[in-house]
Amino acid sequence: MITNLPNLSETVRLALFEDIGTGDITTQSTVDPAINARGYLIAKAEGVIAGLPVVEEVFAQIDPELHLRCFVKEGSRVAPQTRLCEISGRAQGILIGERVALNFLQRLSGIATKTARMVSLVEGTRARIVDTRKTTPGLRALEKYAVRQGGGSSHRFGLYDAVMIKDNHIVASGGITQAVRRAVAQASHTVTITVECDTLEQVEEAVGAGADILLLDNMSLEDLREAIEIINGHAITEASGGVNEETVRAIAETGVDIISVGGLTHSAISLDISLDLTL
Amino acid sequence: MITNLPNLSETVRLALFEDIGTGDITTQSTVDPAINARGYLIAKAEGVIAGLPVVEEVFAQIDPELHLRCFVKEGSRVAPQTRLCEISGRAQGILIGERVALNFLQRLSGIATKTARMVSLVEGTRARIVDTRKTTPGLRALEKYAVRQGGGSSHRFGLYDAVMIKDNHIVASGGITQAVRRAVAQASHTVTITVECDTLEQVEEAVGAGADILLLDNMSLEDLREAIEIINGHAITEASGGVNEETVRAIAETGVDIISVGGLTHSAISLDISLDLTL
Amino acid sequence: MITNLPNLSETVRLALFEDIGTGDITTQSTVDPAINARGYLIAKAEGVIAGLPVVEEVFAQIDPELHLRCFVKEGSRVAPQTRLCEISGRAQGILIGERVALNFLQRLSGIATKTARMVSLVEGTRARIVDTRKTTPGLRALEKYAVRQGGGSSHRFGLYDAVMIKDNHIVASGGITQAVRRAVAQASHTVTITVECDTLEQVEEAVGAGADILLLDNMSLEDLREAIEIINGHAITEASGGVNEETVRAIAETGVDIISVGGLTHSAISLDISLDLTL
Amino acid sequence: MITNLPNLSETVRLALFEDIGTGDITTQSTVDPAINARGYLIAKAEGVIAGLPVVEEVFAQIDPELHLRCFVKEGSRVAPQTRLCEISGRAQGILIGERVALNFLQRLSGIATKTARMVSLVEGTRARIVDTRKTTPGLRALEKYAVRQGGGSSHRFGLYDAVMIKDNHIVASGGITQAVRRAVAQASHTVTITVECDTLEQVEEAVGAGADILLLDNMSLEDLREAIEIINGHAITEASGGVNEETVRAIAETGVDIISVGGLTHSAISLDISLDLTL
Amino acid sequence: MITNLPNLSETVRLALFEDIGTGDITTQSTVDPAINARGYLIAKAEGVIAGLPVVEEVFAQIDPELHLRCFVKEGSRVAPQTRLCEISGRAQGILIGERVALNFLQRLSGIATKTARMVSLVEGTRARIVDTRKTTPGLRALEKYAVRQGGGSSHRFGLYDAVMIKDNHIVASGGITQAVRRAVAQASHTVTITVECDTLEQVEEAVGAGADILLLDNMSLEDLREAIEIINGHAITEASGGVNEETVRAIAETGVDIISVGGLTHSAISLDISLDLTL
Amino acid sequence: MITNLPNLSETVRLALFEDIGTGDITTQSTVDPAINARGYLIAKAEGVIAGLPVVEEVFAQIDPELHLRCFVKEGSRVAPQTRLCEISGRAQGILIGERVALNFLQRLSGIATKTARMVSLVEGTRARIVDTRKTTPGLRALEKYAVRQGGGSSHRFGLYDAVMIKDNHIVASGGITQAVRRAVAQASHTVTITVECDTLEQVEEAVGAGADILLLDNMSLEDLREAIEIINGHAITEASGGVNEETVRAIAETGVDIISVGGLTHSAISLDISLDLTL
Repeated sequence: MITNLPNLSETVRLALFEDIGTGDITTQSTVDPAINARGYLIAKAEGVIAGLPVVEEVFAQIDPELHLRCFVKEGSRVAPQTRLCEISGRAQGILIGERVALNFLQRLSGIATKTARMVSLVEGTRARIVDTRKTTPGLRALEKYAVRQGGGSSHRFGLYDAVMIKDNHIVASGGITQAVRRAVAQASHTVTITVECDTLEQVEEAVGAGADILLLDNMSLEDLREAIEIINGHAITEASGGVNEETVRAIAETGVDIISVGGLTHSAISLDISLDLTL
Repeated sequence: MITNLPNLSETVRLALFEDIGTGDITTQSTVDPAINARGYLIAKAEGVIAGLPVVEEVFAQIDPELHLRCFVKEGSRVAPQTRLCEISGRAQGILIGERVALNFLQRLSGIATKTARMVSLVEGTRARIVDTRKTTPGLRALEKYAVRQGGGSSHRFGLYDAVMIKDNHIVASGGITQAVRRAVAQASHTVTITVECDTLEQVEEAVGAGADILLLDNMSLEDLREAIEIINGHAITEASGGVNEETVRAIAETGVDIISVGGLTHSAISLDISLDLTL
Repeated sequence: MITNLPNLSETVRLALFEDIGTGDITTQSTVDPAINARGYLIAKAEGVIAGLPVVEEVFAQIDPELHLRCFVKEGSRVAPQTRLCEISGRAQGILIGERVALNFLQRLSGIATKTARMVSLVEGTRARIVDTRKTTPGLRALEKYAVRQGGGSSHRFGLYDAVMIKDNHIVASGGITQAVRRAVAQASHTVTITVECDTLEQVEEAVGAGADILLLDNMSLEDLREAIEIINGHAITEASGGVNEETVRAIAETGVDIISVGGLTHSAISLDISLDLTL
Repeated sequence: MITNLPNLSETVRLALFEDIGTGDITTQSTVDPAINARGYLIAKAEGVIAGLPVVEEVFAQIDPELHLRCFVKEGSRVAPQTRLCEISGRAQGILIGERVALNFLQRLSGIATKTARMVSLVEGTRARIVDTRKTTPGLRALEKYAVRQGGGSSHRFGLYDAVMIKDNHIVASGGITQAVRRAVAQASHTVTITVECDTLEQVEEAVGAGADILLLDNMSLEDLREAIEIINGHAITEASGGVNEETVRAIAETGVDIISVGGLTHSAISLDISLDLTL
Repeated sequence: MITNLPNLSETVRLALFEDIGTGDITTQSTVDPAINARGYLIAKAEGVIAGLPVVEEVFAQIDPELHLRCFVKEGSRVAPQTRLCEISGRAQGILIGERVALNFLQRLSGIATKTARMVSLVEGTRARIVDTRKTTPGLRALEKYAVRQGGGSSHRFGLYDAVMIKDNHIVASGGITQAVRRAVAQASHTVTITVECDTLEQVEEAVGAGADILLLDNMSLEDLREAIEIINGHAITEASGGVNEETVRAIAETGVDIISVGGLTHSAISLDISLDLTL
Repeated sequence: MITNLPNLSETVRLALFEDIGTGDITTQSTVDPAINARGYLIAKAEGVIAGLPVVEEVFAQIDPELHLRCFVKEGSRVAPQTRLCEISGRAQGILIGERVALNFLQRLSGIATKTARMVSLVEGTRARIVDTRKTTPGLRALEKYAVRQGGGSSHRFGLYDAVMIKDNHIVASGGITQAVRRAVAQASHTVTITVECDTLEQVEEAVGAGADILLLDNMSLEDLREAIEIINGHAITEASGGVNEETVRAIAETGVDIISVGGLTHSAISLDISLDLTL
């Protein structure tokens, strides 16, 4: 059903085409089409699993008669050597899809695992960990989905669904107040307006201009705290810049509402997962 | 010209559509279409730059009248705070393309930087550092290009351009000798046959069967050396598995021809690069 | 440049293909390819013009050497018999594109004209006239653009860029309060939440639940006024249902912020425009 | 089965993508995926229904497990408050598809309703009511289908399937006789040739040149009658221009074979239809 | 300009992608990108040239800076060893496009050459040589274009632009008269109706039913002559079946209007053409 | 299942669209949608059948409820008047798909038949008959598949999967030795290098440079024999140029490994096959 990953089918189709091209000449020449097999996806390291619906789509596109049985739930944490799922049916189809399925599952699980670590570090504070637009070109919907599987939340999806006035927009538009006014006048009434602020002066100006969300960028903990006081509930507060496993707890404890972390997607390491085949 | 990145235009088109969708509501509402500006891409950390032709394509698709001037060569190593290039023209176009351009450039430069480090570690040996099919779905051509910019070489592009008989194919086909025979009989005479070997017994069987390339997977240094002796020039030798910055030199010193490294693409960290706008 | 109509090129390409198919057999067989001509687009009735950039794209795709010169500004009101623009160049190209260009221009100008009438009727009140998702499948971006050319504003673009809890969602989710809570918990912090209310009880519940916008659907003027009092500035107010040229002024005078009108797009009449050719 | 709407699947896919984009954030966040419901499409006004196969395709693409049951036949006239069909299955899918399904069904039923009115007005004469190329870009096949559901007939589909020499072609080709001769010489022998005539002189020239069909454009009733006499069965006669509910009967009574009406598609008003959900 | 080959650009794009895929690894690795060259297309055998605009499109898509200069006109007959055109510019682009350009040009020229032979054989009779729908899947527009370059004419383009009631339709519809009646009632008034007849009885029935064109299939010369007498100018006559260089003249001399020849496209032999490169 | 014809579905989709366009107006108007029928594909001449899976895909796309039963195996030789398969179900679908199914099946069977003739002529020698890149644009994968059904083997698929240094590359790169060196340095280690040689001097240079395969182009039988002696097992030998049914046996008897024949695909004649319908 079309729900939260509407473009999954096309994304998988492109990935399969990229890998298979005019045909898997190894599998076609060496493996009898009549042979059946079972393949097990096995996590080699601890982590949070994201991407099982993508694995399902991969094998369904290759051979609709392949059967997938999952042993763990999407979004669950698994120990090393956990069997994640079994694919059974014609051996050719399992072999043709192996690498593409793993490329998706390893990357998405890597993102979910990294996100879960950040989320656990801010437990007990009011801060939500959210993603950014620093995603891999072509995979944004999937990567943001993986962040949610790891317990994180979504920021805007693209340039089209929220106004965010960043440093370069301020330069080009002649100031925060003018930029916010223009946005209010021209954008839909259903859209929120975020202003990126580097200084407390900017914070005051942005609050005065009526911004809905203040993105407090690369501020010291002290400035963050002061900014939140200035804002005093008149806008949602979001911290970004220099967020990592060492710094995130202290940032969260300033009382900020949102912490956005580019590294969730631009610098995640693939989770080690492999496929074992048995006849 | 269509040369080594034939699908660049379509890849960029998809990435821009993913980000822009029905329009950049921030830039359109806050920035006067008549205003011109200059944007500078600046590396914040040391690294090898890959992706400048992609940046050019991004801005050309948004506004053909934007002008790009590069200060460094594709594939060159840069120091922190280096200005990489200048984009000049209408401010709206620069702002609309900023994030997509950076997403490509940061990822590809991260891969090139990681590759260059591995390549420098095996300097003086006969070993070539090559990539794998463990690439981001949809970006294989670009990521393999980034590996080459970092001084690495390419492995096969997909399932269609070389035969590689891996562990799971051996299971499904009934043994190395039979698999190689079938491949020789059915694949084009222009195609090479690689066999993945985990043990020295497999090495002997694969050489006897007439494999062109032996992929020595996860072998100890001792076994690697012995395998290379057994092969004795009758096939190209390739080591893979457990390759990282700590282990790569010793592997290369066994005399292996090729070292393939999945982490070049599946676990590269984005190079820190930003765009500064001035009017 | 890609700005507010990013998919214009593809929309025009589809429309031209639909009409031209394997070739314009009339023009190709009857008109000498070497003959040049000038075509004039002429409004036969009073109205507001929207779609000149689409006309430009149509002729540019057919023959890049055709030249378009506009005599009126996009979004301007014109009198009957006004020459809107001149297309000059090879006669074949002008004839091939005539119908598609007119189909776009007449429809979009019809929408702009209808919108302008509604906007003028609420002049002096605080109400903005906005569009809905009741657009022609495939033409949403263009039709919403035409509404803006007529002086109207945009509502959300689709199901992806704002939360709107309508009657059927309330049925399916078990009530307004629960629906709003779930939306707050799961949607991005950048997204606003609209609740459709048919009764004053629903208005009270929605305000209490923290909705950002209240869509007051098919309410009597009296109920509208009371609803606005209840809301008392804690949410944006939007009236919809039964809005037409007879009713819109009275609705606006209730003090509502937004009046959304499906008929702007689903029941607009094409503006009468024709193309006259001279050699 | 591919029969009279070969591109239905792609047209619906584009419309759904336009509305859903990266996901229906309201339905996904507020409605439990496990909840089932029934939705009823209800006509709020009298009219002729066209588009039920499109509604079926919309919901099938969203969720193949949704079940559609129709209570009325495609092309039938219904009274206000008639239940047209029931969609049952997961509530999420019904809610996601509601607007797109209605946008198609309301527009197509509006066209069928308008066509049926015109057809009934010419009952008892020999005249057929036919559509034109003045259709909504991207929806031509569907809109011409709706005309047929309303009892009308089809004109040519595009520039590729019949020769029609209009005023501007006559200007560009140097006269009716020369244009017809060129068309006979170059077009396929399977193609008919229509000539648009504004005057009785043109009618005589066109008949003499051997046109198959004469399009009598914007003629007075008297001229129409005289033209039909001149033609005297040597060509099919078609009236167009200034056709509306007031004028169509008199035009038909001149004895003309075909009356083409652009307003069937360019100025139809959506039929009022809504979807009611119950659990 | 979009005129008689509207889908040329897409057809060439697919062909180039099919051949180049992820890149021309020979040219990229062996030829310096800075080297310029001139390539000459040379016909090795006598024939009629068709496809020069396709050659132009091929090289323009690869490298817009390549320059094409033609020495012969499209549709002209050339002697063996004739230089057809020169492509000059970067050597890489010429080498990348060589094979695809030749594959198009050789096939289309083969069709034009075969057509020209048939056309010359019926010179002086009233018969036109026309093509059929027995074309190569995906290349119909180009192959029908090549037939016209060889002096032939076009039959209908597809199932959508003319009614042709063939033997199997007669079986499925219950007879010629009924089939023609249904077609007249349901198809557009702009469409002609062809009936395929195998016997003189069918000819009489088809004429009586009002067919516009009679396709006389696989008839003896005697039956052909008799059929033409029966038809007596009340319909266009078309002969098909068993048409080849030995039989075509006698068929034409029966006085038939049209001779359709499937072999023009389904059994044409490529014209021998090669590309010579000089620096 | 996606195996050796991954792009079959898209190729068939394009072919059906090309033929059906906006609808089969003959079948829709003359044949009752409720009527069932059986269609038999019958070979009218002796030949080798290739393309039955394409026929299956054609009818499946038109109407998934059509049922195909094959009486002969793909790749088998059949006598004239052999029934190849039966399609049963709604008559409309059989009629709509008839021509496209035949266009594929006749062309592919023509190629398989021609290939089988060449293969039988070299029986008993070591030579393999292989195809070339001289295929019909858009149909390469299918045509190479047909060659394999006829008993032939595949050469490289495109410019991307093997290095082949041809005469024009030698001109542009400055000589065989330099070209081979560059290719070894830059291409993947999985790729083979073919060098086209016209003279024995080139053969010696190519062997010395380390080419994997030598393409001996247009050599006399004597030169071929001498070249094979010079090469002496250090490279695979491939003969091409001037290969036809008269010459192929003698060429094979020189002891060459591979004989590549462009005419298998660029000059094959369609096998005569027709469809007979019964109710």
